[in-house]
Amino acid sequence: MSHHITHQRLAELVGGELVQGDPEAVVTGLNSIAEAAPGEVTFLGNPRYLTALKSTRATAILVGPDFSEPMEGRALIRVSNPTFAFSSAIRHFGPPARDFMPGIHPSAVVSPKAVFDPQKVSIGPAAVIGDDVHIGDGTTIQASVCIGHGVRIGEDCLLHANCTIADRCVLGNRVTIHSGTTVGSDGFGYEFVKGRHVKIEQVGIVQLDDDVEVGACTSIDRARFGRTWIGAGTKIDNQVQIGHNVVTGKHCIIVSHVAIAGSARLGDYVTIAGQVGIGGHLEIASQVTLLARAGVTKNITEPGAYTGFPAKPLMEGRRMVAAHARMPEALDKIKELEKRLAALEARGNA
Amino acid sequence: MSHHITHQRLAELVGGELVQGDPEAVVTGLNSIAEAAPGEVTFLGNPRYLTALKSTRATAILVGPDFSEPMEGRALIRVSNPTFAFSSAIRHFGPPARDFMPGIHPSAVVSPKAVFDPQKVSIGPAAVIGDDVHIGDGTTIQASVCIGHGVRIGEDCLLHANCTIADRCVLGNRVTIHSGTTVGSDGFGYEFVKGRHVKIEQVGIVQLDDDVEVGACTSIDRARFGRTWIGAGTKIDNQVQIGHNVVTGKHCIIVSHVAIAGSARLGDYVTIAGQVGIGGHLEIASQVTLLARAGVTKNITEPGAYTGFPAKPLMEGRRMVAAHARMPEALDKIKELEKRLAALEARGNA
Amino acid sequence: MSHHITHQRLAELVGGELVQGDPEAVVTGLNSIAEAAPGEVTFLGNPRYLTALKSTRATAILVGPDFSEPMEGRALIRVSNPTFAFSSAIRHFGPPARDFMPGIHPSAVVSPKAVFDPQKVSIGPAAVIGDDVHIGDGTTIQASVCIGHGVRIGEDCLLHANCTIADRCVLGNRVTIHSGTTVGSDGFGYEFVKGRHVKIEQVGIVQLDDDVEVGACTSIDRARFGRTWIGAGTKIDNQVQIGHNVVTGKHCIIVSHVAIAGSARLGDYVTIAGQVGIGGHLEIASQVTLLARAGVTKNITEPGAYTGFPAKPLMEGRRMVAAHARMPEALDKIKELEKRLAALEARGNA
Repeated sequence: MSHHITHQRLAELVGGELVQGDPEAVVTGLNSIAEAAPGEVTFLGNPRYLTALKSTRATAILVGPDFSEPMEGRALIRVSNPTFAFSSAIRHFGPPARDFMPGIHPSAVVSPKAVFDPQKVSIGPAAVIGDDVHIGDGTTIQASVCIGHGVRIGEDCLLHANCTIADRCVLGNRVTIHSGTTVGSDGFGYEFVKGRHVKIEQVGIVQLDDDVEVGACTSIDRARFGRTWIGAGTKIDNQVQIGHNVVTGKHCIIVSHVAIAGSARLGDYVTIAGQVGIGGHLEIASQVTLLARAGVTKNITEPGAYTGFPAKPLMEGRRMVAAHARMPEALDKIKELEKRLAALEARGNA
Repeated sequence: MSHHITHQRLAELVGGELVQGDPEAVVTGLNSIAEAAPGEVTFLGNPRYLTALKSTRATAILVGPDFSEPMEGRALIRVSNPTFAFSSAIRHFGPPARDFMPGIHPSAVVSPKAVFDPQKVSIGPAAVIGDDVHIGDGTTIQASVCIGHGVRIGEDCLLHANCTIADRCVLGNRVTIHSGTTVGSDGFGYEFVKGRHVKIEQVGIVQLDDDVEVGACTSIDRARFGRTWIGAGTKIDNQVQIGHNVVTGKHCIIVSHVAIAGSARLGDYVTIAGQVGIGGHLEIASQVTLLARAGVTKNITEPGAYTGFPAKPLMEGRRMVAAHARMPEALDKIKELEKRLAALEARGNA
Repeated sequence: MSHHITHQRLAELVGGELVQGDPEAVVTGLNSIAEAAPGEVTFLGNPRYLTALKSTRATAILVGPDFSEPMEGRALIRVSNPTFAFSSAIRHFGPPARDFMPGIHPSAVVSPKAVFDPQKVSIGPAAVIGDDVHIGDGTTIQASVCIGHGVRIGEDCLLHANCTIADRCVLGNRVTIHSGTTVGSDGFGYEFVKGRHVKIEQVGIVQLDDDVEVGACTSIDRARFGRTWIGAGTKIDNQVQIGHNVVTGKHCIIVSHVAIAGSARLGDYVTIAGQVGIGGHLEIASQVTLLARAGVTKNITEPGAYTGFPAKPLMEGRRMVAAHARMPEALDKIKELEKRLAALEARGNA
């Protein structure tokens, strides 16, 4: 990384205030607390790293409003949110983003019935674009992406290499899809007829609203009919499964290895931690947080945090976990009580 | 959706009987109970939606044999299985399926040693077909699918865009593979020799029998030698892992995020719900159902439903879950008993 | 399979000693204990198959040093590790490995700025190689693999069809990546600002050191800055999620459906069984083994085996599982104790 910059300029860049250190000294790069070298800037985004911070070799540090440790010999830049502010430093020192390169790579296979402005859209090598696909200006479709027939893609989207958008799915503006991901696979629906599982037709679509981001190797099934629908601003991690006809609200967070079964409905601002499972046809209210590995087996109608399998409100769930940990001890106690009770009974009968 | 149709014709189409409503009134489309508009048909496939049904705006409803609610002003069509019968309506009103388009797209890369009738097989753009691949008539291989050397594919198969079938794997007739899926990756086998994990050669294959369907972003490893074998009619969801040398029987159902470790063997009609794990080398009898998140650590020799980790017969598992939920209360009770016992003991010693 | 061979030659081939049987009799192939036919060789790699072995139709068997069963009529070849030694038989009888075919397939799209020796590298059909990519001699890049800009790939690597390596990632020598896998997707990082999740730039890389193998449909996120780093000799199975800035030591084993959250750090020789989850920013000491489905919520500083969620040392975890199984019984016991206590109390008050 390059682009030297003074402490003072760095403070301006990250929207903070230089509260300690030489304004004219030079920052040469950035790094983590543990790996930074003299001349580099780091940040304290998580109090668990405070101890490590004390021995960092970084000479400039972004800190939060409440930071009050003496950090002799270091420049301190106070910002409201060090993690977030550090992004400005990353943009400064980091590698440049890929330029937007409009045009169609000659190896791409684009249906003559696709509708977009080739001077304002970027289609990468070996990408395949089906009939009646619409693509908005500013969108990039990387190498080997496959877009089925009748797909609608908004403006300023980014589809990473080797992802797949199946027929008739609809993507809003500024949607990002990472590699290896499938949007619009068939829902998993069969009826058991005469000893066989007979496929139930899946002719609906997937609709991803504006500002949705979908991670790598994730799958979102199309609806049986109608749509599987991901609300605006919702962010989905890698290795997630979203079943047919699921509806999520706006601005949800869905972390890795979550499985949401068919026809579940989530409100807005739902946060789902890793490895959670949600049963089919369930409803989750807005502002619900599901902790890691929660397994939801009933509707959740009240906002708040839930944990465990079956999922319970956090306090109740924690009591259960704590109780569970004390079980071996409880069994010993029961044995002891039984002995003492038998002794009393024997005495009473004596 | 289009294709207007009368109530009477719709009843015939879905194989049911119009038990209420005007035979000549017109149905203009279909939708879910919640989203239907006047003129549309919906269906009651799950009793949990009965309340919602009462206020649906749909004017025609497919109902089951036992349905007895008065639904004034709506046409009712009685069928034996509303969910399944609705598929006929979906086929009528829904978008047409992709036509089968035989031929080889000019951008596909097909080995001259591949064996198939190009007038009866459809090879999409940027697909890659290896040496000595056999493909049956009526099979569609979509864009950017990669087929290794020596693969055998039966008739009327459908391989969705961006899936991979590795060398020498064998697919029966009417096999469907969704996007992002890998069939024939190496089994995960290493021996620990002198401080390193040394790869154990994996030269077997994967065999998928007739009517197998494999969802999106699923992986099925090849056998170390011999074959990983998925029995006829088995349906596998998205994000599933099937280890090397696993054998499943016929007509199994394997739901999302299931992990089946190497050399496990399943009987016929085994149903595995989401996020289940099955240990290596285990045997699961036919007609076993594993509930969501069950973790199988021992052979299961009797048909029936199993739950929990380690997996137990359903009744036993439910007792454990119920007992678990009562633990905090039990700990309080133990404390109370101890106090009362101590009081008695004190009295006895007094 | 072909290539007949005598018992004596087979013993030499697998580095063992023919301790029983006719040295000149001929072995015609190999198979599993259950499926072998007369003339074939099998092996006993796991004592659980001893009963099955007694009725195998195989006429030659690789056995370990302690094997002492009489196996009349069979040739026995003693080796130090039957599972491992059997690989030599597999190499002999099995299908030949794909030849290394140097050269660039005409349908591949290779940046003129990529740096490699086309006579010593194999680039498959429809593969896409970005600008400033370096590729070492002996490396194979299969069909439809996408390599972003600035990627470094060492010697003798094998990238299976339809995998993706995103910009600037670094692969050592002898690295294998299976199909459907993504290396270098963005980390899942957002800050919540004014009711929206705002993306935190992810400009770091993924570095895979020498001899790393990554299974199918696995995702490894790039670092926010710096690197996500997989140590030499570490083997990763299918369907695994590795978050941004994770660091693993050398020679770790990470089994299917494991999720490792961002910035977790693993030591060397860590073994992680299936469906384990590891929380963000946690540290796991070297030589730790996490049993299937363990969920790690705190640092683990001591080597050894851990189980459960939250993960505990194995003995403690087993006590908890055992206690859990006895809960229904304990509740009954508590009820009984209460009755007996009430009877005593009544008597005392009488």
